[in-house]
Amino acid sequence: MRWLQFSVNNKIQSGYLVGEQVHVIQGDFLDEWQDTGETYPLSAVKIEIPIIPRTFYAAGFNYAIHVAEIAKAMGEKPVLPTSADIGYRANNALIAHDEDVIIPADATEQVQYEGEIVMVIGKKVKNVSPSEALDCIFGYTIGNDVSERTWQKTDRTFFRCKNTDTFKPMGPWIETDFDIDQAITTIRVNGKQEIQFATKDMIFSFADFLSRASKYITFYPGDVMWMGTEGTSPNLVHNDVVEIEISGLGVLRNRFLKEGQ
Amino acid sequence: MRWLQFSVNNKIQSGYLVGEQVHVIQGDFLDEWQDTGETYPLSAVKIEIPIIPRTFYAAGFNYAIHVAEIAKAMGEKPVLPTSADIGYRANNALIAHDEDVIIPADATEQVQYEGEIVMVIGKKVKNVSPSEALDCIFGYTIGNDVSERTWQKTDRTFFRCKNTDTFKPMGPWIETDFDIDQAITTIRVNGKQEIQFATKDMIFSFADFLSRASKYITFYPGDVMWMGTEGTSPNLVHNDVVEIEISGLGVLRNRFLKEGQ
Repeated sequence: MRWLQFSVNNKIQSGYLVGEQVHVIQGDFLDEWQDTGETYPLSAVKIEIPIIPRTFYAAGFNYAIHVAEIAKAMGEKPVLPTSADIGYRANNALIAHDEDVIIPADATEQVQYEGEIVMVIGKKVKNVSPSEALDCIFGYTIGNDVSERTWQKTDRTFFRCKNTDTFKPMGPWIETDFDIDQAITTIRVNGKQEIQFATKDMIFSFADFLSRASKYITFYPGDVMWMGTEGTSPNLVHNDVVEIEISGLGVLRNRFLKEGQ
Repeated sequence: MRWLQFSVNNKIQSGYLVGEQVHVIQGDFLDEWQDTGETYPLSAVKIEIPIIPRTFYAAGFNYAIHVAEIAKAMGEKPVLPTSADIGYRANNALIAHDEDVIIPADATEQVQYEGEIVMVIGKKVKNVSPSEALDCIFGYTIGNDVSERTWQKTDRTFFRCKNTDTFKPMGPWIETDFDIDQAITTIRVNGKQEIQFATKDMIFSFADFLSRASKYITFYPGDVMWMGTEGTSPNLVHNDVVEIEISGLGVLRNRFLKEGQ
């Protein structure tokens, strides 16, 4: 099932997709909901951020080639993570599918995409074993962990390199029926394929992160976890369009605009 | 004015304090609200977390002696921060005044307090100047940024050293009339004073953090920013009671319990 949030005449509503038709619901798709009987063609609605996370988790370095390439860019030695330590991103930075990433005027040219699969938590859990961990997942969506590499190198925190407003596109919807073992992530800039990788080729899996973190942390319905990216990105410039496709999930597409251009 | 959230018979409500009386309101004290006319004696209610932040910001290293002492504990050279780069904490870890901090069974003996003043944002702002920054502050409360120093040293992120469930006591209420220039922070363990410092003696002020971050980040009503601590803490053990008093705000008190003891 594909859950989405959308707006018509600026009113945000929830619904699910059947083919190209949006079926409008009342209530919370993570909890209790009812069909309203109303439908819209998908082409007639504006797609919104599919969920505002309760807590916004991010795996960070979780694909081997990416770890090596980022270390090179930072002037550091690559070190593969030895345990599934989860980090954070911030909700202010979220935008929806087809909304624009705004590169601040004072950013350097090193603005890059990171195409990621996103896990949406559906159940409150603590202390889950790896084998039970996947039971708490409601569904999956796509994220672009946009990064300014110069700030990532110079700043003490990720507040602007990763969390500048508009730097976290997420969507277009949440898919509940998804087989990660079959999934391929493909990233395109202006229609040209930059990289393709097996989505499952992570250093630590969903189950690794959930079971390790939940020894200490209670996860709640509506938390999201972004699972990291593979490879590197070219530097993105004004008017570039980035598409992240994960087979079985869909395509997240966003244009990059440089402030003041 | 002192705003609080409290419960009676497990029902969480909002109100304000006049002397020792809680005046119950309907609505959101950051937005629209009305008096219900109902009151309770403060002693008859359970104090709850005063606000669940929209985004939970933390200044980190923001008092000079603390920077030096933590560097020593981490086996690193002390480096004073050169810009007001803001970090993050996570809502799962919040508890209220008088609730217990639970130290996980596998934590080392290096569990410590950090007593901090907390700023609560009341207005949506972007790109504020230092001179206008304070206008977006709704009020102030107290936080204890409980930290497990061994995990802080060994882990790649702060997910468990700072964000283990119960590691972020906050409260007891939000005070809107507060003069930081007059305020003194006093920290006591089991009634014995450990440290006392002028709350305002920060490396970067509220205005510094807000104006720098808001060049990139939109702040929203309900965001909180924890402003860092001074000095260091003894290692806390089972049954220790930590009180953080900030003059003009009140006292945040929490007992520490070791899991399995």
